[in-house]
Amino acid sequence: MTVEPPDFIRALDEADPIRAFRQRFSLPQGVVYLDGNSLGALPAATAPRLNEVVRQEWGEGLIRSWNTHDWIGACRRVGDKIASLIGAEAGEVVVADSTSVNIFKLLMAATAARPERRIILSEAGNFPTDLYVANGITALLPQLSVRAVAPDQVMEAISKDVAVILLTHVHYKTGRKYDMAAITRRAHECGALVIWDLCHSAGAVEVDLGAVDADMAVGCGYKYLNGGPGAPAFLHVAKRLQKDLKSPITGWFGHAAPFDFASAFQPAPDINRFLSGTPPILGLTALEIGVDLMLEAPRELLFRKSQLLCSLFVELIDSSCQGLGLDLVTSRDPLSRGSHVSLRHAQGYPIVQALIARGIIGDFRAPDILRFGFAPLYLSFADIWRATDALRDVLATRQWDAEQFKARALVT
Amino acid sequence: MTVEPPDFIRALDEADPIRAFRQRFSLPQGVVYLDGNSLGALPAATAPRLNEVVRQEWGEGLIRSWNTHDWIGACRRVGDKIASLIGAEAGEVVVADSTSVNIFKLLMAATAARPERRIILSEAGNFPTDLYVANGITALLPQLSVRAVAPDQVMEAISKDVAVILLTHVHYKTGRKYDMAAITRRAHECGALVIWDLCHSAGAVEVDLGAVDADMAVGCGYKYLNGGPGAPAFLHVAKRLQKDLKSPITGWFGHAAPFDFASAFQPAPDINRFLSGTPPILGLTALEIGVDLMLEAPRELLFRKSQLLCSLFVELIDSSCQGLGLDLVTSRDPLSRGSHVSLRHAQGYPIVQALIARGIIGDFRAPDILRFGFAPLYLSFADIWRATDALRDVLATRQWDAEQFKARALVT
Repeated sequence: MTVEPPDFIRALDEADPIRAFRQRFSLPQGVVYLDGNSLGALPAATAPRLNEVVRQEWGEGLIRSWNTHDWIGACRRVGDKIASLIGAEAGEVVVADSTSVNIFKLLMAATAARPERRIILSEAGNFPTDLYVANGITALLPQLSVRAVAPDQVMEAISKDVAVILLTHVHYKTGRKYDMAAITRRAHECGALVIWDLCHSAGAVEVDLGAVDADMAVGCGYKYLNGGPGAPAFLHVAKRLQKDLKSPITGWFGHAAPFDFASAFQPAPDINRFLSGTPPILGLTALEIGVDLMLEAPRELLFRKSQLLCSLFVELIDSSCQGLGLDLVTSRDPLSRGSHVSLRHAQGYPIVQALIARGIIGDFRAPDILRFGFAPLYLSFADIWRATDALRDVLATRQWDAEQFKARALVT
Repeated sequence: MTVEPPDFIRALDEADPIRAFRQRFSLPQGVVYLDGNSLGALPAATAPRLNEVVRQEWGEGLIRSWNTHDWIGACRRVGDKIASLIGAEAGEVVVADSTSVNIFKLLMAATAARPERRIILSEAGNFPTDLYVANGITALLPQLSVRAVAPDQVMEAISKDVAVILLTHVHYKTGRKYDMAAITRRAHECGALVIWDLCHSAGAVEVDLGAVDADMAVGCGYKYLNGGPGAPAFLHVAKRLQKDLKSPITGWFGHAAPFDFASAFQPAPDINRFLSGTPPILGLTALEIGVDLMLEAPRELLFRKSQLLCSLFVELIDSSCQGLGLDLVTSRDPLSRGSHVSLRHAQGYPIVQALIARGIIGDFRAPDILRFGFAPLYLSFADIWRATDALRDVLATRQWDAEQFKARALVT
């Protein structure tokens, strides 16, 4: 069953200028990990660095490490590093809270900045937490309502009554990618603000927030940034908007001078105003390792490799899985998709389980989606070949038919 | 300078039934750590356990560990353990977000549950984030306002127009402790809800939320619970209220079935409805170690030792620092204080720095407060003696006069 990949696959790997990064991750033997869009792999440097932070900085330094090891600056420091991955400026990104909480903060801030407008525009079928949080806000502020439309109707749904648009740049299920520049431009023409959810983009897809004059963004630390399970999230606000937007959660870390312990809240003059509680240092430590590692690779090579991995996957499926019941959900156009590819099959769930049993880890999204993510730092072209070869074999032998798997979805 | 403590101090340590717990912490040599109310010390088990979670569960298990290592249940599992430290039932506490975000969620939920009432009652001089968040909510919902009164006026300020009372059980600066039972009873007579901030109580002071029929509480994982810098916080809602209170931040982990990816939000029927984003597994891991360690000690011995450490400190200050310019801020009555003692001195800041230079780590709170926290699991009576002896010496020799220290407050 361990057939070697053909020569052209080996040639692709040999020509890959960032292939050496794979050695910087601790991946289990025999596993092809195509779920880095759900939980990124473990960088080899993470465990030793966490051990150092725990034993030296916390254990020995104790309370003093807030200053001596600059824990106090971690949200901004790691934020600045993430900024450079998504085309933002230093001072426009902080690491804070979870994506859900950050969406809440930015939606509240954006709707308050457009008090005469009543619509939050989003996509029907957006990742659930985005819609849940948006709808939750309309329960708090009944003058607001959510307009959720199909992806190809977003442009025409942008009107003068829209306060803010909340879109996930790359769709978690279909992999469809929005034209960030066009939507942002149209939104600004109508006086609306835009929040881009970059959970499935940051670290895998070219994003240039500065070039498109983006307003705000949020994103996840535990997917392509390899920050570890439940890593803290990030939040972006363009500098031109920072003074006018206010966080609804005015916790002490958002104060202009948190350690003055003043009785009145004075928001920080900059992006720090979107911080709330005490920063999670262990989570920030692991996230910083993931981001630092990614920053070692030239951005254009990283994003180019993502595209090539996706394209190879699609081509191999096309050539080897014909007539086996698979439908391609994700676009064939590299410019219209992110860094994962979804396939549809009526037996999607047991097929994914059969693949996992062979060490090919992808995931399943109800009702019938097989999802495969392509993290450019640690995947090889041979991995893609092995995955499609195994998928072909599972389908051709109907292996999924014979097996029993317990029904339990994994975290996106 | 390393004078040995007198016999009666050694006798106290020998008679201490939980003295062996000190060996379970990694404390630096020569340090007397009286700042565990700001950042708790490092349990010896934390670094090995984190290493295991990172290398095995994340590195090897990857996405599968959400199920196979029950990451998915961590918020509730650790919450249940914390519940047993504060007299709550299993299913009444979850670990989530930061204290600031949890205060926001519960204040919003409580005021929404009392729509005809307009007042959030709190203490003037409460820990800043509590007041900042409460005042931030009045900016969102202008029908609400904050009534902040002196601690001894809280009882009389509880009236029929109060929706919710937000009080910190043990004051971060003075150490003053509220009568939780009396205030809760009075609040309920008036139809108001109460949120207790247990940041300076949990793990150090007897709290029995069930016995006082408490409504809601929040608290911090990084102080007496020894969960590490910026550890996730916890949140309590009494079972009888869970169905009626709604989180304003309706993130996917608060859904009744997060992995159904349903398009409409359906709040979990239980305490899980107060979760929002993906749980921070590294922070939860360290917090669980801290809480597990604390649960090994009988609660009554733990809280009794806290009282004894405080009392000894006060007695030694009384007997050895007379006429040296110190005023006791914290009550002499063990029933009216928490597990830290504050002193006032015009030269508070440089005195604290002179003590730190001798390895006695307390902290300073503007304008003139020296604060010393007494964590019962890892402090000895000899530590208290060494601290007061050093303080006497610094004051008597006016050592603080001669030294230069840079002015920089540490995190509470």
